[in-house]
Order: sequence, then C-alpha cells, then structure tokens
Amino acid sequence: MAAQKDAPAAGKLWGGRFTGGTDPIMVQYNESIYFDRAFYSQDIRGSVAFARANQKTGLLTEQEFNEIERGFKQVLKEWEDGTFTIQPGVDEDIHTANERRLGEIIGTAIAGKLHTGRSRNDQVATDMRLWLRDQLEILEGYLIALLKVVAARAEKEIDHVMPGYTHLQRAQPIRWSHWMLLYGSFFASDLERLRQVRARINKSPLGCGALAGNPFDIDRDAMAAELGFDGLIMNSMAGVGDRDFVVETMQWGSTLMMHLSRWAEDLIIYSTGEFSFVKLADTYSTGSSLMPQKKNPDSLELIRGKSGRAFGHMTGLMMSIKGIPSTYNKDLQESVEPLLDHVKTVGDSIQIATGVLSTLSIFPENMLRSLSPDMLATDLADYLVRKGVPFRETHHISGRVVALAEKEGRPMDQLTFEQLRGVDARFEQDVLGVFDYQKSVEMRSAKGGTSKSAVLEQIEAVKKILAAN
Amino acid sequence: MAAQKDAPAAGKLWGGRFTGGTDPIMVQYNESIYFDRAFYSQDIRGSVAFARANQKTGLLTEQEFNEIERGFKQVLKEWEDGTFTIQPGVDEDIHTANERRLGEIIGTAIAGKLHTGRSRNDQVATDMRLWLRDQLEILEGYLIALLKVVAARAEKEIDHVMPGYTHLQRAQPIRWSHWMLLYGSFFASDLERLRQVRARINKSPLGCGALAGNPFDIDRDAMAAELGFDGLIMNSMAGVGDRDFVVETMQWGSTLMMHLSRWAEDLIIYSTGEFSFVKLADTYSTGSSLMPQKKNPDSLELIRGKSGRAFGHMTGLMMSIKGIPSTYNKDLQESVEPLLDHVKTVGDSIQIATGVLSTLSIFPENMLRSLSPDMLATDLADYLVRKGVPFRETHHISGRVVALAEKEGRPMDQLTFEQLRGVDARFEQDVLGVFDYQKSVEMRSAKGGTSKSAVLEQIEAVKKILAAN
Amino acid sequence: MAAQKDAPAAGKLWGGRFTGGTDPIMVQYNESIYFDRAFYSQDIRGSVAFARANQKTGLLTEQEFNEIERGFKQVLKEWEDGTFTIQPGVDEDIHTANERRLGEIIGTAIAGKLHTGRSRNDQVATDMRLWLRDQLEILEGYLIALLKVVAARAEKEIDHVMPGYTHLQRAQPIRWSHWMLLYGSFFASDLERLRQVRARINKSPLGCGALAGNPFDIDRDAMAAELGFDGLIMNSMAGVGDRDFVVETMQWGSTLMMHLSRWAEDLIIYSTGEFSFVKLADTYSTGSSLMPQKKNPDSLELIRGKSGRAFGHMTGLMMSIKGIPSTYNKDLQESVEPLLDHVKTVGDSIQIATGVLSTLSIFPENMLRSLSPDMLATDLADYLVRKGVPFRETHHISGRVVALAEKEGRPMDQLTFEQLRGVDARFEQDVLGVFDYQKSVEMRSAKGGTSKSAVLEQIEAVKKILAAN
Amino acid sequence: MAAQKDAPAAGKLWGGRFTGGTDPIMVQYNESIYFDRAFYSQDIRGSVAFARANQKTGLLTEQEFNEIERGFKQVLKEWEDGTFTIQPGVDEDIHTANERRLGEIIGTAIAGKLHTGRSRNDQVATDMRLWLRDQLEILEGYLIALLKVVAARAEKEIDHVMPGYTHLQRAQPIRWSHWMLLYGSFFASDLERLRQVRARINKSPLGCGALAGNPFDIDRDAMAAELGFDGLIMNSMAGVGDRDFVVETMQWGSTLMMHLSRWAEDLIIYSTGEFSFVKLADTYSTGSSLMPQKKNPDSLELIRGKSGRAFGHMTGLMMSIKGIPSTYNKDLQESVEPLLDHVKTVGDSIQIATGVLSTLSIFPENMLRSLSPDMLATDLADYLVRKGVPFRETHHISGRVVALAEKEGRPMDQLTFEQLRGVDARFEQDVLGVFDYQKSVEMRSAKGGTSKSAVLEQIEAVKKILAAN
Repeated sequence: MAAQKDAPAAGKLWGGRFTGGTDPIMVQYNESIYFDRAFYSQDIRGSVAFARANQKTGLLTEQEFNEIERGFKQVLKEWEDGTFTIQPGVDEDIHTANERRLGEIIGTAIAGKLHTGRSRNDQVATDMRLWLRDQLEILEGYLIALLKVVAARAEKEIDHVMPGYTHLQRAQPIRWSHWMLLYGSFFASDLERLRQVRARINKSPLGCGALAGNPFDIDRDAMAAELGFDGLIMNSMAGVGDRDFVVETMQWGSTLMMHLSRWAEDLIIYSTGEFSFVKLADTYSTGSSLMPQKKNPDSLELIRGKSGRAFGHMTGLMMSIKGIPSTYNKDLQESVEPLLDHVKTVGDSIQIATGVLSTLSIFPENMLRSLSPDMLATDLADYLVRKGVPFRETHHISGRVVALAEKEGRPMDQLTFEQLRGVDARFEQDVLGVFDYQKSVEMRSAKGGTSKSAVLEQIEAVKKILAAN
Repeated sequence: MAAQKDAPAAGKLWGGRFTGGTDPIMVQYNESIYFDRAFYSQDIRGSVAFARANQKTGLLTEQEFNEIERGFKQVLKEWEDGTFTIQPGVDEDIHTANERRLGEIIGTAIAGKLHTGRSRNDQVATDMRLWLRDQLEILEGYLIALLKVVAARAEKEIDHVMPGYTHLQRAQPIRWSHWMLLYGSFFASDLERLRQVRARINKSPLGCGALAGNPFDIDRDAMAAELGFDGLIMNSMAGVGDRDFVVETMQWGSTLMMHLSRWAEDLIIYSTGEFSFVKLADTYSTGSSLMPQKKNPDSLELIRGKSGRAFGHMTGLMMSIKGIPSTYNKDLQESVEPLLDHVKTVGDSIQIATGVLSTLSIFPENMLRSLSPDMLATDLADYLVRKGVPFRETHHISGRVVALAEKEGRPMDQLTFEQLRGVDARFEQDVLGVFDYQKSVEMRSAKGGTSKSAVLEQIEAVKKILAAN
Repeated sequence: MAAQKDAPAAGKLWGGRFTGGTDPIMVQYNESIYFDRAFYSQDIRGSVAFARANQKTGLLTEQEFNEIERGFKQVLKEWEDGTFTIQPGVDEDIHTANERRLGEIIGTAIAGKLHTGRSRNDQVATDMRLWLRDQLEILEGYLIALLKVVAARAEKEIDHVMPGYTHLQRAQPIRWSHWMLLYGSFFASDLERLRQVRARINKSPLGCGALAGNPFDIDRDAMAAELGFDGLIMNSMAGVGDRDFVVETMQWGSTLMMHLSRWAEDLIIYSTGEFSFVKLADTYSTGSSLMPQKKNPDSLELIRGKSGRAFGHMTGLMMSIKGIPSTYNKDLQESVEPLLDHVKTVGDSIQIATGVLSTLSIFPENMLRSLSPDMLATDLADYLVRKGVPFRETHHISGRVVALAEKEGRPMDQLTFEQLRGVDARFEQDVLGVFDYQKSVEMRSAKGGTSKSAVLEQIEAVKKILAAN
Repeated sequence: MAAQKDAPAAGKLWGGRFTGGTDPIMVQYNESIYFDRAFYSQDIRGSVAFARANQKTGLLTEQEFNEIERGFKQVLKEWEDGTFTIQPGVDEDIHTANERRLGEIIGTAIAGKLHTGRSRNDQVATDMRLWLRDQLEILEGYLIALLKVVAARAEKEIDHVMPGYTHLQRAQPIRWSHWMLLYGSFFASDLERLRQVRARINKSPLGCGALAGNPFDIDRDAMAAELGFDGLIMNSMAGVGDRDFVVETMQWGSTLMMHLSRWAEDLIIYSTGEFSFVKLADTYSTGSSLMPQKKNPDSLELIRGKSGRAFGHMTGLMMSIKGIPSTYNKDLQESVEPLLDHVKTVGDSIQIATGVLSTLSIFPENMLRSLSPDMLATDLADYLVRKGVPFRETHHISGRVVALAEKEGRPMDQLTFEQLRGVDARFEQDVLGVFDYQKSVEMRSAKGGTSKSAVLEQIEAVKKILAAN
C-alpha cells in the first residue's frame, strides 16, 4: 500500500486532524494567495459585515465586534501601504492571510470567533462578486468614454464620404461617420448588456456557509444591504457552487472584444498603404527593428490578438465548470486568475481603443479617391426603378452598363449618354446626375441610413444611451 | 495567367454580368437552401411587410401589392403542404426560392419589383431574427415547464434528507428538495437571462439594404411594428453585419446546457450502484447489448455530451465572426446551421430533463443510509460555539472527536459522553442531541438554508419568477 | 414516488428485462441511425472479420460463417443500391440495423450468434476508426492536389514581384511565388502531420468487448490484419472509451482550416479594389442581389467562415470528453455527427481552395504599382552595412532618408545623390543602384529567401514531400 | 483632424523617424519584457550563433565576434545571478534588453552590428522554439516518471479485482491494474505524440529576417546546427509568421490534460464515501475551514480545473491566429504568455498526478464489496454460448435471471440451481462455477483483456515505450 510518511501540516486552517506534510509543488499548485490577494479589501469588507451580523444575533459581543472592526482597519491599511507581509506556506489564500493578521493584531481569542458559521466557500464567492461588481462599474466608465469619442467624431466629421464595403469589396458610398456609428451601435449594445450582467452579479452569497446555509439565523438581507448588494443568491448550494457570474462576464467581455477586433481589423485595412484612409498617432504605432520606413498599427493588432485571449478565458472556464458536480469543487479556484486577466484585458483594450480613435488622423481625400463610379450602379438601377422599371430588370440593365464600362475601359460615369441609351432606351438626360457620391449618401434617408439627418439621429441615439444610466 | 473557361451561369439572381460556370463542389459549398429553408415562413412574412411599405411610398401599386400578398399566401401554403419543390442549382437560398416561385405564380413583371431597395443582407437578418425570437418563446415555455416540475417535486418531497456534498465528499445533511432547488436557482437565472436576450434580438434590421440603408424613404418603424419587432437596429451597417444575436443566444444556451450537464452529472452519480439514491425511468435509460443486467442513464449522458455540442456551436461562430471586417461577409452564412442545431439541441435537452425529473424514482432510505455521523462535525463545533467557545477552537475540538472516532473504529455518534468529555470538558450531556440529521437541516434556517421554512421560501421564489412574464 | 407506467419496449436489443415505454423525443434524442449509417460498410466489414475470428475459435461453424458472410454481402448491396430500408424506432443504430437485416436474410438462429463476445462499444469504435482512416487517405489526396497547384504556379510565375507585408504594412519586396510557398510550407506541414495522425488512428479496438476484453480468446491480431489496421489498441477499456482519435483529427483539421483561413484572408485583401493583385474566377465568386457591379469572393469567405465551424467541432467534443469518467459513456455518441461534418468541411474546403488557386487571375502590374521605394529602406541600410557602418547606425540613417523623402514629398528613389549625401557622407554614387525591386529580391539569397534560386529550392522541397508517401 | 502633439520617443529601437510620445497604458499594453524575459538565455544563444555566422561571411571581424560573445557571457551571468536590471519603458522586450546591456558592456560600436540582417521577427521565433523544445524535453521526463509509477503499481497490485464501469454503472469485474493501465495507454499515446510535436518544433527560423530572408548570404544550416535544431523552416515568411508550433503544443497539452482530468474524475469518484476504493495522501488533500471531518481531493480537482485552463490557452490562441493575414502581425505576441502558463500548468499537473498516484492508498476489500453478482450476467450468458446457444438468446436468458433475482430480492449467485433451471433448461450443475469474480477476469484472456497474462503484456508494452526514446 502507499507510503504515507508525511510531516505534520501545522498551521493550516484545516490542520486539526491532519498528520501529513506537503509536496512543494502541491503547495504552489494549491495556494491562491498570489492572485486572490486582489480581493483583500473586499474580503475585509465582507468579514466586517459578517461580524456585525453575528453581533446582532449575539454570537459576538459589541466589544468583540469593535475589536474585529478595528483590527481589520489596520489590516486594510497595511495592504494599502504595501506593508502587509504574506507568510509563504501559511497564508494560502487571502481569507487565511487576513484572519491570521487579524489574530496577530487583536488576539486569536476574538479573531477565532470571526469565521463562526461561515465557510471559505461563501466568503470567496462574496469577495469575487463584490470585486467584479465594482470592476464592471469601472469598465462601464471606459465604455462610455469610448462612445463619447465615437459620437463626437461622428458629429464633427459627418461630411466625409468614403466607400462602404461588403465582402471587403467596394459596395456603396457611405459617410465616414456612418462607419464609426456602426461600431457605436455595437458598443452601445455592449453597454446595455453590461448593465444587465452587473445587476445579475450584484447578489449576495454571504451566509450560505459551506453549502447548507447558516445555522445561527444570520440576517443575510442586512449583510447584503451593508455591502451594497441588490439581493440574495437564495439557495445556499447555488451560492457557493456558482461561478456563472464569472462566465457571463467573460461571455460579455468576449463579445465586446469581438467587436473591438472587427473595428481594429477595419482600421488596420484602412491604414494600409493601399487604402491610406487613416493613420494612427505615433503613440499607438511602433516601428520595425529592421525596416526604418515601417509604422505598424501595433495597438490595433494587440486588440485583435487579445480578443482571442479574452475568448480563451471564457472557453477554458466554461469547460472547467461544465465538468463538475454541484456545489463547491476546488476546480472553481481556476476561475480567479482568468477573471483577473480578463477584466484587465478588456479594460485596457477599451482604453487603448479610445486613445486610438481620439488621435486617429483621417485622409478624406484618399477616401474620395477610393470611391469608384461603379459603386453607383445601385443608384443607376434605382433611377430606373423611379421610372417604373421592375427592380430585377433594372439590376440587370445596370449590370450591363457596368460590363460596358469595363469593356470600354473607362469609368461608368464617363460613358456617354448615347452609350447608356444604347443599353436601355429608358435612360434620359437626367441620368448623369446619378453619378454624385454626396447625392448617393443623401438618398439613403430612411432610418439608419447614410443621409446626414439619418446619421445625426443615430448620434442622438448613442447620446441617449450614455445618459440612460 | 489563369484559365477562365467558365460556362454561363444563367438563372442566378446575380447573373447579370457573369460569364462563368460553376464547380459542383462550389455550388453545394455556397448554397444554403437546404438549411435556410427553415425560415420559409419568416421570409414570406418579411417580404409581405416590405412590399406593403413599398406600396405606401408608391413604389408598388395597391394591385401589385395585392398580387404579391396573394402569391405569397400560395407559396406559404405549398411549403406547409410539403408541395414546394426546390429547384436544385437555381434556388440557392430561401430568398431566391421564394421569389422564384412568386414569379411563377404572379408573373415576374410584378414579382421583379418585390426586391426594390432591399438586399438579401437585410432580408436574411430579418428572417433569422424573426425565427429566433419565436423559437426563444418556445424555449421559454420548455424552461417554465421544467421549473414547474422542480417546484412541485421540491414541495412534495420536502421531508427527505440526504447527504450534501462539497468536493464530492459528504459534507452536511441537506434536504433532497434543497438539491433540486439549487438547479431551480440556476434554471431561474437562465429564464431571466433568456427574456433579456430575446428582447435584444427582437429588433428589426429590415430596411438596412445591402449596407447603406434604403433610398426610397421606406417606413422602417411601420415594418417593424407589422412584424412584431420591439424596435430597430438603427445603423444600417450594423443591421446587416451583425450576428451577435446568434452569438448571445448560443452563449445563453451554452450556459443553460452547462447547468443541465452539472445536474445530469449529479444524477448519474446518484444513480450508481454505490449511491443508489435515484433510478431513472426505463423510458430514459437504455440497456447494454452485452450486459443484460445494465441499466444506463443514457438520457443524462446525452444531455452531458450535447452540452459540449452546444458549446462548440458558440465557440465556432465566435471565431468566425471575430475574424471578419465590418458589414456582411459571406462567413456569416456559417451562423445558420449551428443556430438551427443549437436551438434544437437546447430545446430537446430541456424537454428530456423535464421528462427525466418527472419520472425519476428516489430512494430516501438509501439517502439516509449514506449519511454518516461525521457529517455532523460542524454541528458539534456549533454546539460549542453556542457555549461561547471561539469557532476556530471548536473546529479543532470537533476535528479531534472525528479523529478519535476513526481511531476507535466507531461512528462519532457512538462515542460515549465520557469519550467526548475526554476531548473537551465543555461538552455537556445535551451534546448527544447534536447527532440528529433532521435537527441539523432544521438548524440552518437563515435564508437560503436547509430548514423547511427556508426551502419553502425558495419554492415560492421560483413560482414568482414563473409568473413574472 | 415517481410513476413508472411504461409500456414494454419490445424489439430493442437490450429489451430483455425492460418493461418501460419511450418518450418520442427521447427516441430521437438517443437514436443514431440517421447519422451512423455513414459507417454501414465499415460495420459490415468489421462484423465479417469478427465472425471469421469466432469461426477459428469454434464459436461458429464454417457453414454458419459462410451464411453470415453471404448475408452481409446482400445487406451491403442493399445499402449501395439504396434499397436498404431503415425501420424507424427499431433500427436505433447502424449495428442494430445491419444485424436485424442479416437475421431476416439468414435467419436469427445464425445471426443471433454474430455478436458473441462483442459489444456495441468495441463495434462502434472499430467502425469509426475504419471509416476515418479511409477518409484521411482521401483528404491526403486532396491536400497533395492543392500542393501540386502551389508548386506548379510557384514555378511558372516565379518572376513576378509584389509587396511583402508585415502588420499588413508594406515591408519588403517579395516574389509572388514566395507568398504562395509560404502557404505551401503550412500545407506541407499539415500533410506531414496528417500522416502521423492517420497512423495513430489505424489501430484496432475490435475484441475489447464492452470494456473488459473478449472471453473467447479471440485472435485480435488476425482481425486487425484482415481489416488493414496497423496494430491494436491494447487495453480494452482504452479501446472502448477513447475518442481521442476524433479529437486529434479535429485538432489537425482545425489547424489546416486556420491555414486556409489565413490564406483566404490574404487573397480577399489582395482582391479588394484598392489592392487589385488578384481576381477570382467567376466560378468561385458570386454577385450581389442589390449591387450589380459587385463580384464577391464568396468561396474564400466561406473557407474563412467554415474555419470557425471546424474549430467548433473540436472544442465541443473536447469539452464533452473532458467531462466524463473512463470507458464508454453515452456522451461519446456526440462525437459522430461533428466528425462527419468536420471531415466533409475540411475536404470540401481543400478542394475549393485548389479550385480557387487553379483559376485565379493575377495582375502583376498592380503588384508592381503597389511597391514603393521606401520598401527599399532596408536595402539602403544594408548598402551602408556593406560599407562597414554598424547596422543600428545604418538603420537610423535610412530612417532619416525616409523622413527626408516624406518631407520633400517625393519617393525616396527620386531624391538626388546630393540629398542622400546630405544625410550621410558615406553614400557613394553606386547607392542609386539600390532602388531596384528585382535586385532587392535577388539579394535575399540565403536559404528560404526571395531570390530565384532560394524559391526554386523551396519548390523542390515541396515536391519531395509530395513524393514522400 | 486628430491632434498629434506627442513627445519624442527617444531611446526606442525603432525611434529613428518617430516624433510621437506614448500613452502609459499603451506602453504596458505593448511591452513584453515582463514575460518574454523567460527566454533570456535562448535569446543570448541565438544571438551568439547569429554573430558567429555573420563573422563567417565577413560582416563581423573575429575580434568583434569575440567581444560580442564575451559581452553576452556577462549578460547571461547577470540574468542568472539576478543582477540584470530591466530599464522600464526602455527595455520593451528581451531582445532590446539584451542588446542594450551588451552595448553597455562592449560599446555600441560593436553591439550595433549584432542585429545586421536580422529582425526581431526571426529572433523571437528562434527564442520561442529553442525554449519550447527544451521544455518539452522536461515534460517528457515528467511523463515518463508518471508512466513508470503506473507500470510499477500495476505490476505490484495485479491481484486486486474491482468493478469495471460503463456509463458509471457497474458492468464487469476488472483488475485494479487494468484500470491503471487504461490511463497508462492514454499517457503512452501522449508520450508518442509529444515526441512527434517536439521534432516538428525543433526547426530553425533564424535567418528569415523580417519576412523576406537574409541579404548577406548567411549560413542558416550552420546556425541551426549550432543551436541543436533538426533543420530549417524554409520559407522565410512562414518562419516569422508561424505560431503553429505553439498551437500544436497546446493541442497536445490540452489532450494530455483531458486524460488527466478523466483520470482525476475517476479517482474523485472512487474516493467518495460511497465508493471508498482509494484515499489520497494528506499531502494531496486539504481540509475544510468549516467541516473538520472533511478530507477533500483538492489536488485532483485542481488537475480537473486546470484542464479547462490549458484548453482555454489553446482556443484563445487559435482564435487569434485564425484571424490574421500572413507573416508577422503583433497579434502573435499574444502567444507568449499563454504558452508560458500552458507549459507550467501541464508540467505541474503531470508531477502532481505522479505524486498522487505514488502515495494513493487503496482499499481492495471495498472494491470487492462493490462487486455484485449481476456483474457476472455476461459470464452467465457466455456459459450458455459455450453450450451452443446463440448469444442473442443467451443475452435474454441471462436478463431473465437478473430479473428473477431482483424479484426474489436476492443476489443472482444465491438463486438455487432449480431456479436457474426454471429459467432455462440448458443450465447444468457447473453453472454455479460462473459466480466467481477472479475466474471472470481470468476468462478475458484475449489481448488487452483482464486476465493476468493480458495485463502483464500491457505492462511490458508500456515499459517498451518508455525505453523507446
């Protein structure tokens, strides 16, 4: 049978009956203090709320509670001053570390009462939800800042016309602002969803215990209120075994990064030598160690690359959670590091995008140069529609004009009226007025279209959402 | 240079200027009719709404509109009767098929006017949103049915006590109903989120054209209202280039399947010979071709397996969308088949789960037998807490009692009072009352806990959510 | 307790002791015949080999074996003729269907002996490995065909020079063939790996039984040899519980599709109006229903989109398998449909890519036009390196020349010798020779570079791999 | 237009023509030194090899090379001593840091010649491949150690019989060693694949330059040989733009972790109170902060959870790479951190698994107790097969015996001979010999089965693979 010559594991919270030692790889495989220390203040806030509730039920005296509160103030200060010293191998997680230090300050007789009726299972869930709720508020601010830049630039630069693409082929003229508002529309949807996600996260699991609830009739509602939660996770097993709030955050974040990636992709293409529609500020570009002429859109490429990273957090965690039975399993510890990195990645990326867009140079003359008369083929078809020709027929006629222009080797707008008439007798002299890009964008005046009024309406819609907090 | 000896591509909608033929593999690689036919009725509804709007702006006469409406009624009937004949190689998608057939019925002179100012880009986005919106309503019904079974069983079987597990180790006694309500809590969250997702999906992209909007001043709001949409996707480029509504559905569905998978995992473990807490109805089990004694929980294993499948749809589509520039790119066609399969997978799985739970046999005596006195170690610690001993100390004392019981080779509740007293002098005679599972679950009476009142409150919460539509 | 009033499940293979009926949704949720019928011939081959082995050990007489073989010949013919009729609700999978039909042809007295010592667990694993092994051989052929086109075009069009990009910014001149061979290098790596994957798949699980092996001392090696396997999956539990061969295929296929997607992305960009380096044959393009001038690279976009689909198969299956305990669990049934779709997706995509590349038009003059003198900045730095100036210094000097050209508003190659000299006195008259794109690509003559000899060497390397079967 | 009032970016490698400043968030978003410092020694080895090759072509004098080599020896020593000081904001990556420090030691006149004809693009690819190649050798060692424990325990504990499960239902008796060898089979396959992956990684990209190759006719083969590479990545664009070697490593690692996760899942179930087959050493368990009796298999749960993490690395990177065009794009920087974490996660997990298995206690008596006579139903059917009854019939007869035993409420092996005979007249007295678990496992003597000889053969196979390096 297997050898079990383990040395005593003294000093562990759970060490009461253990007689074994530890494998050093196992120690670091297991310990979380080096990342869950991010929750130091949430852990303290949650503990104070928990102690206050235990005082109300009589488990702690007023004086004991005051000591706990005083002690934690000092612990908090030490974290904030950078003077808190983690004891390697003892402080395996933030909960252990905070309570260990509390005991040193106020004595273990009182500190040893803190955890009464609580488990690290509900404690860590509380910490994470508090932390994440606050982080999402910060992210909301970043997203609003980005949307403000979108709206401001869209308003200021509304007159510039550029090619609109489908399949990355020139399709129809659009306003440059219309392009920006496309992403404004995506980001606004991200903002709306962020608010819903945050509301779902902001529920209190405190008082769920290890899995079965609290046996001292603690007032969970009061604790939730003190901590600014909007309600409870009711079922105690759900409270401790759920990391869906992390998954949903990551699903949200991955979608937002997917939007940022498409936005970056567009701008990377627009900043090629061949397109030359835009140019990134030096701040957001880097050069080449070999090619002195290069100016690379690194910031946008990093956004695009980090979009995969954010997605990887989500898929990895979903796989982990999918494979476990109910309640708390240690697998859930693997939600913490990805969450920290995810939130940082998303937050940085929104800010970088805001910086890039704020400082982006545009070259309207190059946008204009990239417009080609065949992009007005739909307008030509529409011209005939207005003369009563069925669309399917106009589409084919317009196609024949495009083909004729190709055959003649000249842009469609330089075909003569006679040549157009040769294709279809219903063309009249006013057809030449079709070949005007500004007119083309103004024609699309239905809601959501490219006309100036339709674009301004979109800008108003974005502004309204920003205010709708 | 490359040879281009292609035969004419006659009969394609877009064939006006094309002179090439087709590769048969390319034809099937490209065509979508064999799956997007699922949207036949949505496509027709959208077309009728579009035609009505074009009549209002004068692009169609009243008589033309009436013909179109009449024709589409027939087309719809043919689909529903199963008499619609797809023309291979011609009807490449549902839009082409429906319009082709309309032309045969009412003549191409009028049918050829239908598509005026519209593109397949806004058309397919409209079809998909209409279809999905309706499907999500069906899924909502399934989910409510499942939650009703959870609530009903939880109420009826509230008296049964079983082991609660963390780390799959016996932890504390819980009620069987409490276990069911844990998943009730997850499913209720899925229901809440479903309603939010559905609301976000139910926006109209109709009138966005190919990318730049509609040039005939179509009334997008009126079309949206006719189709039961709750508003517009404003920006026309967003309207055609967005499949986030599919992604968000799949994120939701993957999370729901993750919940079902954990639920199935629990039940698979509970139905092992070693646990024997539950037994699936024959309906939801299958046997072995080699081992006649086997009764396998295939239904639950399939739920667990299909959870991966649903997740694969989501990750695959996110990868596809992440890698494309703005507006419509053909890559987006790859959203359709996964969506159809995803919705079917999720819908079937919820229904199977409902069937399994409705017909599940439980063995409360086996649940009881699996409870062991050491699961009351926390209660023993709590006993001392109530005597004023700090929790950290009680935790160690209780651990020593567990160790003593192990050493003595007898269950903890069969230690003598003297033995307990030997561990700690603060144990008094009433300590023996601790070893009572029913009492243990009743002690956890704080909200969300295992006491009868706390469980009943959870049942009420579920019922309230069901009503909250 | 739950009601179990199920009707008898007569006619199921595993019906011996079952007394329950079935839920129609469960029937279709469970049955696999509508997809695993793809393995009909493999299932028959495996059964014949199994029967032959059972004859050798005396479990079957020679005559019984002959009957079984004769019967299966007819069953096979019926599948191939399309006359095999699946009996809904009875033929739940291909194994059941084939054996049921065999019994009808040769009588159940003999047919009932076929399955002796076998389980559907080892049977399906055998079917899948046989099928996949053969499919991978077909895919290998497709990949070789693609590589041949790469090599042939690279050889023929070796003289064309185009811009090479990093960060999608013009970097240095390269040969068009060099670009093709970049992907040739990726595809060759896919080919190498395919051969390794196929070898790992081509092992026999037949004879592993349900999980514990075969109790009739069957000759597994002989069966493996008959079926063309290269060896055995030894451990019987591994043999039945492993779908890693599907996972590895999908990992391989996802990587290949990732390569195809990057290749497609390049070509989509190169076929924009702004680049205009290449043009797809009409066969592989489609038009727009609204914009007659459009010619969209749908084939390439579909490759790019299907790359996500192929990836989704892999991630979904990995999630499913990750979450199960050892041996066969019904979750594994979820490997079949994704596998079928994966193999088809990959196979179609390679063929489409081959077609696209075979028929692609290129525009070397546009490639040339897109080259800009500042792409020779490195060559200018290298010129000074050859004069003995440290590279870091030459890099800065060259950068100053680029800046001067920008300031002067003229291409770098139109600066005067005096202007160059003004930047650095070490420039001599021969510096003007630097501004030659052909010379630039020829300078990079180290292995793997852009010089003609280096490119030809790469072509030879590709050819060698093709032959290395 | 956008403001560009950036301060000078002095001191950057690429700063020659840049006039802008930097956004502090962008600086940290972009810089990689805090993770790519992991490659410090590889970066130095590659640089020395590169310098030596440039000496051979005359770009460096012998003395210059000697200075470079001497300088790098000191730089290396500083890293190893921990005395290397990273200059924040200047040393943006390991390449910059090493060259900066080299210049301080030997002067920039010579150090400035180091990078001649090289780019950070081929440099980082070289660093990563060198590092990964060496890491995979370490992982190979870990895997071999794990397999040795598997083989040793399997040999020593070959006599213990336990239930084998399919669908997690008791199926047939197996040997405990057979279960271990199932995973031995998986790990052996991981080992085989690891060796193939490592061989594919161990190719040199050095000399590929920025993308187009090296213009000074450098001897790539000589550099590759010096660095221990097995050959070249030929095409220079492939050399710099490829991170497939990271993807393939992660695909391999995710599969291995999937195996470890299933293994952990089995052991977690086997260590429940209900199964009690095994018990983890204290070293690899932890306790509960609330429940003193708990002993949780945290090590196994962490393995299971980290399996998702490893998978997330892979999916995230594949998404990033899938979405980029050819050659180097900055997105590829996002491959480094996940790679570092992936390799550490996999390496730690294999070691933990080895520790767990080495110290695992087993309880053969509990394994025996969990065997139930109905697990011999197949043996009973096989008994009749040997009497000439067709299997399908024996399967039903055996099923009826199982049903009878259930009805009689006694184990199948305690039915009387008469009762058996009542089910089928062909049962003879020797049938009672069937009910023997040891006999049952010995019966499965075909290759890969549960008989002692078949298990010993598997152990030999594992040993052979270990030797086959």
